[in-house]
Amino acid sequence: MSVHTDRSSVTVLGLGPMGRALAGAFLDAGLRTTVWNRTPGRDGELVARGAVAAPSPEEAVAAAPLTVVCVVNYDASDAVLRQDAVASALEGRTVVNLSADTPERARDTAGWADRHGIRYLDGAIMTPTPTIGTDDAVLLFSGPEEPYREHRPALSALGGSHTHLGEEIGRAAAYDIALLDVFWTAMAGYAHALAVARAEGVTARELAPFARGIAAILPPLFTEFAADADAGTYSGELNPITSAASTMAHVVHASEAHGIDASVMRVIEGQARRVIALGHGTDGFTRVAEVLARR
Amino acid sequence: MSVHTDRSSVTVLGLGPMGRALAGAFLDAGLRTTVWNRTPGRDGELVARGAVAAPSPEEAVAAAPLTVVCVVNYDASDAVLRQDAVASALEGRTVVNLSADTPERARDTAGWADRHGIRYLDGAIMTPTPTIGTDDAVLLFSGPEEPYREHRPALSALGGSHTHLGEEIGRAAAYDIALLDVFWTAMAGYAHALAVARAEGVTARELAPFARGIAAILPPLFTEFAADADAGTYSGELNPITSAASTMAHVVHASEAHGIDASVMRVIEGQARRVIALGHGTDGFTRVAEVLARR
Repeated sequence: MSVHTDRSSVTVLGLGPMGRALAGAFLDAGLRTTVWNRTPGRDGELVARGAVAAPSPEEAVAAAPLTVVCVVNYDASDAVLRQDAVASALEGRTVVNLSADTPERARDTAGWADRHGIRYLDGAIMTPTPTIGTDDAVLLFSGPEEPYREHRPALSALGGSHTHLGEEIGRAAAYDIALLDVFWTAMAGYAHALAVARAEGVTARELAPFARGIAAILPPLFTEFAADADAGTYSGELNPITSAASTMAHVVHASEAHGIDASVMRVIEGQARRVIALGHGTDGFTRVAEVLARR
Repeated sequence: MSVHTDRSSVTVLGLGPMGRALAGAFLDAGLRTTVWNRTPGRDGELVARGAVAAPSPEEAVAAAPLTVVCVVNYDASDAVLRQDAVASALEGRTVVNLSADTPERARDTAGWADRHGIRYLDGAIMTPTPTIGTDDAVLLFSGPEEPYREHRPALSALGGSHTHLGEEIGRAAAYDIALLDVFWTAMAGYAHALAVARAEGVTARELAPFARGIAAILPPLFTEFAADADAGTYSGELNPITSAASTMAHVVHASEAHGIDASVMRVIEGQARRVIALGHGTDGFTRVAEVLARR
């Protein structure tokens, strides 16, 4: 059986919570799974479930045609992959790097892989650990089509929806960054709202049903504003940015009256005021996307 | 028919897009509707549909037991209401102020109303103009129970779900502020993500389906973090704040590499780093809610 056609085995490098979830899903799908982690002692449960613990990363990657890497970032994945012994062992094999980092890091490591005859894909996991192996998992991939197609059957063990975003290796990281941007900014808004609510005598549990209602109105607005952004037209007919800025000022004022740091909303209000100062006061808020990128 | 028992007529002060939607919903429900706006010429369509245009705010409020005010903020509503002639005409009647502002402004105007024998409720409209009169409208009210119950039938013409949050007059504005905080912060994250995506060659329409996916995972997280926040325990087991901060740094770096302003995420990352510096690195991100309120 050549390394290229053996689709029944896989190697996982990195056994943090997500790496363990990935290895567990491969095992559940019946794949021969080899694991390795820089810090020992993370593989106990996986070995009990049938995984093979490799003594070194080069031996780990040599055990399968497909290696999935899931470590904290590209500094960590480069430290494992970019060793002579590992690079030699990987020649002709495929690496799918699910470690999160920026598009430029993915491009840089893809260049290294290319120089070493390693087939390289980058990926991003958009859903939390418990979704892995279930229908709820969302995974994004980018890089050359052919190794993606070849290893798609093994990767499907991770569950959920898989999207190949194209050959440009940085694409998965670009989506990842943009989506994490939405996620963490929204979470910051919620954490802040909880602080303001508490200062007003409103518990988080009282606020939560209404906060869920706000989250529920976001998806159609995201669709609407996407069309606006691509067209470069930002209709403010229903909600002009002047009105948004006035609302933001209320949030800042009400927060600071309670001694609550309102610096995030201060920055956002400042961006809205800048759009207004540039003469776009009747436009909608998302014109902010234009001024953020102005040099 | 006394002004207190005439539940078939209502006055609307303020005919911006939302005020016109409110008046239109009252007309649709068959209520005798009197309207007034500071700037003339906004009532044409409403009068054509049967509304009575009052020549002054005092004559407007005298025409019905219930006056609904919807202007840009409390500066504007106080400018209309806190005139001697208007205050006199309102004695014994009910005002529901749906203008958005801070809880302290609602409390201040409620004090004025009390001194003038005016029954006063504050309210907040949580959904956009087109929802008014439909099942999708979400309205919050606070203030004395009795006038709320009395005018509930007329107010129900506005459609949707109505919640009376309690007698404390500032409560509706407190919820409003907290929810607008979530909304605009999330929108700012999305606008920023669109800018980053564009710089990476990803169109808004390509990103939108995934952004909707992110919005869809927020409601259960809001519920989970609400329980954490009320209990003061912020579990970071699945996603410690150290990992969140590392992700935020990627967003900042990827943005600034394209010359895109990342100041919102810089502030959020700083808040996360502060939580870590305070010794809570293994907690979840929402512990930020605690440090925001620290003096």
